[in-house]
Amino acid sequence: MIAYQDLSPLELKAELSELQARYTAFKERGLKLNMARGKPSPSQLDQAAGLLVALPTDQRPLDSNGEDTRNYGIIRGIPEACSLMAGLLGVPFANVLVGNNSSLTLMYDTVARGMLFGLRGATPMTQQGKLRFLCPTPGYDRHFAVTEAFGFENIPIPMLDDGPDMDLVQNAVTDPTVKGIWCVPKYSNPQGITYSDTVVRRLAALKPAAPDFRIYWDNAYSVHDLYPDSVYTASLLDLKTACDEAGNPDIWYMFASTSKISYAGGGISALASSEANLAEIEAHLSIQTIGPDKVNQLRHVRWLEAIGGGEGLALQGIHQHMRMLAGMLAPKFEMVDEVLNRELAGLGVANWVKPLGGYFILLDTLPGLAKQVVAMAKDAGVVLTDAGATWPGGKDPNDSNIRIAPSYPAIEELEMACELLAICIRLAAVEQLLAG
Amino acid sequence: MIAYQDLSPLELKAELSELQARYTAFKERGLKLNMARGKPSPSQLDQAAGLLVALPTDQRPLDSNGEDTRNYGIIRGIPEACSLMAGLLGVPFANVLVGNNSSLTLMYDTVARGMLFGLRGATPMTQQGKLRFLCPTPGYDRHFAVTEAFGFENIPIPMLDDGPDMDLVQNAVTDPTVKGIWCVPKYSNPQGITYSDTVVRRLAALKPAAPDFRIYWDNAYSVHDLYPDSVYTASLLDLKTACDEAGNPDIWYMFASTSKISYAGGGISALASSEANLAEIEAHLSIQTIGPDKVNQLRHVRWLEAIGGGEGLALQGIHQHMRMLAGMLAPKFEMVDEVLNRELAGLGVANWVKPLGGYFILLDTLPGLAKQVVAMAKDAGVVLTDAGATWPGGKDPNDSNIRIAPSYPAIEELEMACELLAICIRLAAVEQLLAG
Repeated sequence: MIAYQDLSPLELKAELSELQARYTAFKERGLKLNMARGKPSPSQLDQAAGLLVALPTDQRPLDSNGEDTRNYGIIRGIPEACSLMAGLLGVPFANVLVGNNSSLTLMYDTVARGMLFGLRGATPMTQQGKLRFLCPTPGYDRHFAVTEAFGFENIPIPMLDDGPDMDLVQNAVTDPTVKGIWCVPKYSNPQGITYSDTVVRRLAALKPAAPDFRIYWDNAYSVHDLYPDSVYTASLLDLKTACDEAGNPDIWYMFASTSKISYAGGGISALASSEANLAEIEAHLSIQTIGPDKVNQLRHVRWLEAIGGGEGLALQGIHQHMRMLAGMLAPKFEMVDEVLNRELAGLGVANWVKPLGGYFILLDTLPGLAKQVVAMAKDAGVVLTDAGATWPGGKDPNDSNIRIAPSYPAIEELEMACELLAICIRLAAVEQLLAG
Repeated sequence: MIAYQDLSPLELKAELSELQARYTAFKERGLKLNMARGKPSPSQLDQAAGLLVALPTDQRPLDSNGEDTRNYGIIRGIPEACSLMAGLLGVPFANVLVGNNSSLTLMYDTVARGMLFGLRGATPMTQQGKLRFLCPTPGYDRHFAVTEAFGFENIPIPMLDDGPDMDLVQNAVTDPTVKGIWCVPKYSNPQGITYSDTVVRRLAALKPAAPDFRIYWDNAYSVHDLYPDSVYTASLLDLKTACDEAGNPDIWYMFASTSKISYAGGGISALASSEANLAEIEAHLSIQTIGPDKVNQLRHVRWLEAIGGGEGLALQGIHQHMRMLAGMLAPKFEMVDEVLNRELAGLGVANWVKPLGGYFILLDTLPGLAKQVVAMAKDAGVVLTDAGATWPGGKDPNDSNIRIAPSYPAIEELEMACELLAICIRLAAVEQLLAG
């Protein structure tokens, strides 16, 4: 293919009318597809049907301490669920608590506690005046929305190939108003980047001016490899160990959930941190809740143990289940890549990277075209994530990021949606060049 | 029986040695009973075993809008769960949202939103300086703990026979630092009092100085009658209608859960308020969570529909289930009353009222003895709720309230525990009179 930049105006006009015809044809098909969020597909959720009947009815659902999961209490979650989530996060049992279905709530509430009560003796952040938070960008809109809601100024930090630009981070944390950094360290949302060991070590060794600065480590995709049995899986350095070694034992919070393992609407979540941080959190939680839904915690453990092959094998169950889900997801990611290659390779109008895991593909249009492309796709029946959503405040200064979420649509729908997306990208580019 | 006050010192001494012998005998039995919290008993929880398999595995668990409960979204909860909880609270569908397993979390988070963001345009309470909250007393320790944690001064308001002392409440709310009142309006914790229509109307018609004053209406025992088929059930005036009629449409929040209907550790909860208040809450929740556990919501509806006799009959299912549970609980309440009557009637050392519903019996010792009695019972193996817990800050000025929670122990254990409690009360009274 010849790059659009090398075409003559006449050739561009010919291309334009061909693309317009294809776009109109798509519009007439009356598509109704949604690729806005990284939602698991119904068939993917079907794979966890065993979860619905994981608990036998002929015996009481007791945890491994003999406590009744149906009754009040056990703020940290039942031991077997804590073990499972500790395994998932790669931290010791004593560093984990297990919550309800939304890890976002664990993150939000952690920021809220900092605001209301202060962290480990620090002044409550509501009394500290100006507050700032570091946002590796492009990044996850729901993270940014949390700190924005609490009045933080979200500071974008460019993502490099191996994680956030650590020179900028190191400089930023010399400002005592900077209270934290959002990280999706493995298969980042939306680029699929995994932080290098160097980046993890530099994060762990930060010397922030603020004593209440924390690393929010949302390890959302820890076992979400697309090719789990090959060498094509990213490995992430253990942040806890790195922080301990760097003399920063209390600087980290980790989060995870089974939203994309079991059910996005009915999974379990986990928060890990130093034992001292966790004790402080537990004291607050004992006022906020009568305990998490422990029946669902036990349901998850039993279901995963059944997959893993027996008692105590729930973590193995996760790995086995994720291998199966990878078999459903990888073809979708490959389809996106294939269609984009077929339609866009060599035209000089878009860049994207096919990730090895996670839930997203980040595509960059020519500068200034992302909003237009997303709007055109919507007009033809395909809803994408809002352009700009990957930036704090929803403002992408280059207006070029488009986040593709391939997980939800069926593969034949995905093929159509990507073809339409590519046509919109090409159309917008041709129009820009002709106007230019 | 002759009142202890009318016994001679010699008679008191004889009584003392007899009681000491009985107490020692109890101690030697090595009891290990816990009546500290209003926990459902294991057999009571067994009655909800159908909940574990309420969802079929051969079809997708979709809600009545066809949305997949296993996936993200639906911040307010699925429609059929909202209908159910609206019915339970006696408010329209549009006024309800359904959350996860802990209604305490809904209350805590509601107070937190007032602190952090302010309510309906009011200044965030973190910026308002001194804050006060009204606490009908004796009352529920977990309520008081929430406002205490946020730095409110908890103001005790004496409970009368038909609810809080409304003259004092009306006067208190002329103070703009007073931001709310905790209410358990039906079968109150711990007295079992139901607010009279007059009290509800006076609450609804309050003219608080603070625009962000709210009534926190924790209708925890709305269907928890001990004698549901008889005339011995309390009826509670509808607060929402009363507030609407009084021109105070936004002054109320209602809360409920299925903790004592299905599972204390795995139920569903609800928050109701005016549509305007609810819209504000939903906007915050859309940042805090990806949605509640909708699978568990659907599981509850299906299970209760099966009990109630079919689709749309979940509320009938609750009433039927609660009639059955009442059959298990009423004998326990009657046993407490019977033992206390047998051991204490006429001695002039204790008062208690046998309630018609709820989860507690409130007993009053002679002034100054509650802590001692609770400690003596504990030494002999029976853990009661801490003396003073029914008062803000855990400080009962008369040191006389003891909260009895009959639901958890088996009935023969309960009989022993109450006999021991009565012996402790008598012993402490005799010692006080002899010392006096």
